[in-house]
Amino acid sequence: MRVRWIMEGFVEPKIVCGSLLSIGNELLLGDILDTNAHHIARELRVHGFRLRRVVTVEDEEDEIARYLLDLLDRSDFVIITGGLGPTDDDRTRQAVAGALGRPLTGNREHLERLHRRVERKGIPWSEHTGRLACFPEGAVHMAPELPMAGFFLEHRGVPCYFLPGVPHEMETLLARKVIPDLDRRFPGRPIYVKRVLRVQELVESEINRRLASLEPPSPGIEIGYLPQIGENWVTILVRGTDLDDVTSRLTEIEERVVALLGPQYVSGSEDEPMELTVGRLLSGRRWKLAAAESCTGGLLARRVTAVPGASDYFERGFVTYSNEAKVELLGVFRSLLDEHGAVSAATAEAMARGARESAGVDVAVSITGIAGPTGGSAEKPVGTVFMACSTVRETVVRKHLFWGGRTQIQERAAHAALVLLWRVLLG
Amino acid sequence: MRVRWIMEGFVEPKIVCGSLLSIGNELLLGDILDTNAHHIARELRVHGFRLRRVVTVEDEEDEIARYLLDLLDRSDFVIITGGLGPTDDDRTRQAVAGALGRPLTGNREHLERLHRRVERKGIPWSEHTGRLACFPEGAVHMAPELPMAGFFLEHRGVPCYFLPGVPHEMETLLARKVIPDLDRRFPGRPIYVKRVLRVQELVESEINRRLASLEPPSPGIEIGYLPQIGENWVTILVRGTDLDDVTSRLTEIEERVVALLGPQYVSGSEDEPMELTVGRLLSGRRWKLAAAESCTGGLLARRVTAVPGASDYFERGFVTYSNEAKVELLGVFRSLLDEHGAVSAATAEAMARGARESAGVDVAVSITGIAGPTGGSAEKPVGTVFMACSTVRETVVRKHLFWGGRTQIQERAAHAALVLLWRVLLG
Repeated sequence: MRVRWIMEGFVEPKIVCGSLLSIGNELLLGDILDTNAHHIARELRVHGFRLRRVVTVEDEEDEIARYLLDLLDRSDFVIITGGLGPTDDDRTRQAVAGALGRPLTGNREHLERLHRRVERKGIPWSEHTGRLACFPEGAVHMAPELPMAGFFLEHRGVPCYFLPGVPHEMETLLARKVIPDLDRRFPGRPIYVKRVLRVQELVESEINRRLASLEPPSPGIEIGYLPQIGENWVTILVRGTDLDDVTSRLTEIEERVVALLGPQYVSGSEDEPMELTVGRLLSGRRWKLAAAESCTGGLLARRVTAVPGASDYFERGFVTYSNEAKVELLGVFRSLLDEHGAVSAATAEAMARGARESAGVDVAVSITGIAGPTGGSAEKPVGTVFMACSTVRETVVRKHLFWGGRTQIQERAAHAALVLLWRVLLG
Repeated sequence: MRVRWIMEGFVEPKIVCGSLLSIGNELLLGDILDTNAHHIARELRVHGFRLRRVVTVEDEEDEIARYLLDLLDRSDFVIITGGLGPTDDDRTRQAVAGALGRPLTGNREHLERLHRRVERKGIPWSEHTGRLACFPEGAVHMAPELPMAGFFLEHRGVPCYFLPGVPHEMETLLARKVIPDLDRRFPGRPIYVKRVLRVQELVESEINRRLASLEPPSPGIEIGYLPQIGENWVTILVRGTDLDDVTSRLTEIEERVVALLGPQYVSGSEDEPMELTVGRLLSGRRWKLAAAESCTGGLLARRVTAVPGASDYFERGFVTYSNEAKVELLGVFRSLLDEHGAVSAATAEAMARGARESAGVDVAVSITGIAGPTGGSAEKPVGTVFMACSTVRETVVRKHLFWGGRTQIQERAAHAALVLLWRVLLG
């Protein structure tokens, strides 16, 4: 049973193991969640590396030094995040210098680069900024072309990547520098290919029921579920040594999974969020979209316009928070608001139709509801949301009852409106 | 220097330092975020304990044993989570038995309890379930009255708490057993109080420069920096034994920090994001706000309306993505757009003024810029953003050049617009 997905000739490849040293008091004080470790773990895995352990310590030289030496002894590579800033509580440079016996030395070229950068920004030079140009002996700046800290050194043959703790900087350097470098250093390691399927309108238990005949996953293939706001992700991970083999096995299993789920519920892959999927459909039809939102307060427009090139199909958005705005901008009749209330199917329908007509677009989506925490009633509790999608041909209205706090209700409502738009565009 | 902040009669309390050993492959595969570590860190801190380090390892005996011994040597107490289940991949019991030389022995009383529990549930008894009644020599079941794993042992005077990895079980045992036991074992330990100051318009190095005369932080007070999107956080952590004393020292140091930073740059505390700060100012003045956005696509309105009760002051938002929308909804002259371009100071000014007048509100904020990745030019590169804030009295315009990807530029622009609004509201 467990070898069902193992192809003939499958050889378990040598695994490359890394460790992560995560530095920062705020992680240990419970101020922030360690999303960096999570991101690094996922990226390493997708690229065929295994993260064996994560050690999180305070910004303190002794601790950093001790665990850096420990991890160096036990890893094929080490990634270190945090403590690279210019301030006094950033201790990583000093700790590395001490632990590895590599004194800090200023890098003249980088110092000049920092001077130019500071000048361009028009901020005064400080001694602290100068610290950013100091590296342990033998270390090289990881990305001099980018305005972020991060250096690399090899110690006793083990590559060590020192990255900033700021998530977007860490993510940029990981993707552009660390993974490509590891890739060069460790050829022939196992390959993982992963596919995420975004599943709409099916709850997790239903997904599980539909995929039951695939269980249990084989050692070469793992299938997982990851609930997201408004949608569920089904992940397929296939391991092997040969890219063609792995890819063809992925294609095979993916087809089976999609067939079992029902193709009409799968909107796209990991890098195809709903706003991109509907954006492509709109572009393909050369349709223009408008949005009219009340309780989501601009979140729907924000998601649509998060996609580069959204200006090709997104014409305008109305955040009609007040009744006056609904009347003046969308032409909703005041009598309709009085009779049905702002949170009603009739208002959602009138908002979508009004937005479409006043913006002169092909399709418009509306949302009106009660995001809470106050404003609910027995008849319309917090979480009640009406939405509509209007084209020349039809106006489709849906009612939802979402759970969770204000933010979750807003996020679920915006997502459901994108799903409604998707259904209408698919016809 | 280091004792500057020590009050007269202040006795440095002994700090009780713990370590966490977090066991589980899923954490290292990037499947799930380690919310357990975050929860434990926060709870310990609130109760006056300090989490010095977290080590995350796979469910593997050698790794568990090695780091358990390491942490035992360096901690006043150790919490271990995960690997306590009945299946073959749960290795914590065996690892502890080996590392500490405490062979596993069955606990007859607990075995009978498990038998009764399984019978009551009507599920068949399995050899695996029996493993749950095996503990390392000298260990006691942590909560026999609860249907969850978890045991306690003291090794060379160091208390070790073994908790399940399932979050709600871990949280229950932490609150009901671990914290009360620590509380009994370590009386007279320090109290911590913390304040986060949100700082606007000052870069990290400038904050550091202004706070330089506070450095180095005293043993009783820690000051840290945490860069966020568009703002910086300065954190103040004060330690002591007496709540009144700690609170008054926090107030004192906070006043000094604010004075050094400049009160006009401090917008609020951790639970007062910019959208809440401006919301309160608007409410206080009984002013209504409108937003007119182009490149941020609704993000500004979304942030404002994320606050419960925003309907008291947020009237409407315009997402005028197309030039037509700017002309039709905001009354921007087409000739102005032709002459200056949609991304210009003149357009930002006209948008804010137009939004204020057409919505009939007291104040309006506008944003127009190039979020990228395309659309930039030599004169107006990607990241160029103009924003304006208009009242009856004045219309203030600002130009920014933000860096980063599309999302970051959008987020920084929306934040900067809130800061501009804040400045105008403060007069």
